[in-house]
Amino acid sequence: MPLKIYIDFELSPELLERLKEGASEHELIFPKKPASVLSLGALEPSFYEADVVFGQPISSEVEKAESLKWIHVSSSGITRYDTPEFRASMKKRGTFVSNSAHVYDEACADHALSFMLAQSRKLPQALVCNTPNGSVEWNRLRQGSVPLKGQKAIIVGFGAIGRQLNKLLAPFEMEITAYRRTPRGNEGIPIVSEATLPSALSQADHVINILPDSAATQNFFNAERFKQFKPGAVFYNIGRGTTVDQASLIDALDVNQVSEAWLDVTVPEPLDESHPLWKHPRCFITPHTAGGFNNETRACVEHFLENLKRFTAGDTLDNRVI
Amino acid sequence: MPLKIYIDFELSPELLERLKEGASEHELIFPKKPASVLSLGALEPSFYEADVVFGQPISSEVEKAESLKWIHVSSSGITRYDTPEFRASMKKRGTFVSNSAHVYDEACADHALSFMLAQSRKLPQALVCNTPNGSVEWNRLRQGSVPLKGQKAIIVGFGAIGRQLNKLLAPFEMEITAYRRTPRGNEGIPIVSEATLPSALSQADHVINILPDSAATQNFFNAERFKQFKPGAVFYNIGRGTTVDQASLIDALDVNQVSEAWLDVTVPEPLDESHPLWKHPRCFITPHTAGGFNNETRACVEHFLENLKRFTAGDTLDNRVI
Repeated sequence: MPLKIYIDFELSPELLERLKEGASEHELIFPKKPASVLSLGALEPSFYEADVVFGQPISSEVEKAESLKWIHVSSSGITRYDTPEFRASMKKRGTFVSNSAHVYDEACADHALSFMLAQSRKLPQALVCNTPNGSVEWNRLRQGSVPLKGQKAIIVGFGAIGRQLNKLLAPFEMEITAYRRTPRGNEGIPIVSEATLPSALSQADHVINILPDSAATQNFFNAERFKQFKPGAVFYNIGRGTTVDQASLIDALDVNQVSEAWLDVTVPEPLDESHPLWKHPRCFITPHTAGGFNNETRACVEHFLENLKRFTAGDTLDNRVI
Repeated sequence: MPLKIYIDFELSPELLERLKEGASEHELIFPKKPASVLSLGALEPSFYEADVVFGQPISSEVEKAESLKWIHVSSSGITRYDTPEFRASMKKRGTFVSNSAHVYDEACADHALSFMLAQSRKLPQALVCNTPNGSVEWNRLRQGSVPLKGQKAIIVGFGAIGRQLNKLLAPFEMEITAYRRTPRGNEGIPIVSEATLPSALSQADHVINILPDSAATQNFFNAERFKQFKPGAVFYNIGRGTTVDQASLIDALDVNQVSEAWLDVTVPEPLDESHPLWKHPRCFITPHTAGGFNNETRACVEHFLENLKRFTAGDTLDNRVI
């Protein structure tokens, strides 16, 4: 049976064709005005008659659109929909919600490894240094480079990105563990529990935070947690800014409890240029670009079409979150 | 039989102890004044009675030291010893020459991958950008990130560093080929010949130059070679600066035949701040730090001691170059 699919997502002519072709059995609705969270205001009437939405519709309007059976969110983050009330409301109605997390997994893992290697090879310092071979600064750069090989890393928040990062790190022969709230037993690396996390942190040279944003992860990395670190550990955040108490991170950097911080996410984004983390000589920040890549919109469309097949076949949706 | 080993290498007290312990069967000679190429002038008489030298002795003095049976060079580069005359002279005398290449292989491969990932993730641009999510510059950064996965790379000069880099790249599922003057048949990846190199270059998204310095590699990457590149390819050099005609590289960058150049080596080192490559917005340079790492001196000593065992046992030396 054809579905009414409301496309709340700006597309190039080429990708529009691909979407139309991939969903040719269905009725696609393209609003003149996007229904996304970014543009508030009354939505077009067709929204309230749709079976499926692909995009980032406003959660309050989703609750009013009683015909909706499935919402495929075109981003990885679902903070806007991640409230007990919204979850309960969708569950009661039997409306599925999926996100586009898998689209960004590999680019996020690449970004995490680029941070780890740039740190190990001291790229930020080396790329601005043109002192002669043999000079004091040159020796400092060379001898400040600590190979990843043989070092200990802990991945905090072990989902698809963590698994991919673990795969990329395999040739480096690091000792890798992960923290996961609900271990599945199929992680392929040692998983530490809440109880053993402090001990694992005290041994890790690299702490890679990939926690999602949720009530349970707010300020997960706080003053107490940073005190559990091995002195001089390197901290990375490619999860969400809200999982870090930034004031405590600054304190930890200042006393060298954390030797370097590499952050792709902060609160707010971006940080002001006067923010102590932005100015800190041992804090390196990219502006939430970790998931991005040249073909991300195409990959989003393909991911949606794959899930559309699953939805119509009654199969389990990929990245279903509600 | 104990050997007289001339140590032309500055060591910390700890590493000195390690060397003495590891070479306890032999007589170690520590000159008051180093015999290295860095300090010209008359050497101490003991140099001319030594069986073995560990360091970077002046080649002209080596030729006079007729008792020398083996020289272990404490660097990876052997340009100073790599002349037909010196080679012939050592061969005639039966003096072995080995270098410390393997000490630096892994750090060089790490450095090459750090370049490739920093390029892929646009780190130099992203680390100085604090524009908001969704802004034009932010979108440019995200969509300018081209994943390594599925792209083609060619490693030009395929020795131990190339092999290690190939190992690190395995999880990225790139299509990797290599150019090697004398293929051994055990490379584990497709090897292209001089004849097929232009065709291979025309398809490569990433050209990684790890050629050593020799008469045959001078300006290997010249105007003609850069014209063989796939337009917009990324060029990396972690071999030797002399293998690149820098004026032609600048031209290739200017017309975007090479979209980015990532260089750890140049001629001269360092480049002057006014040099067009140093100032070029798409050229990224580290000051010959690729082989360096925190434990390199220790690793050098261990590598020498391992080779000393081989030498006394009559086994093949590691990294023997003459």
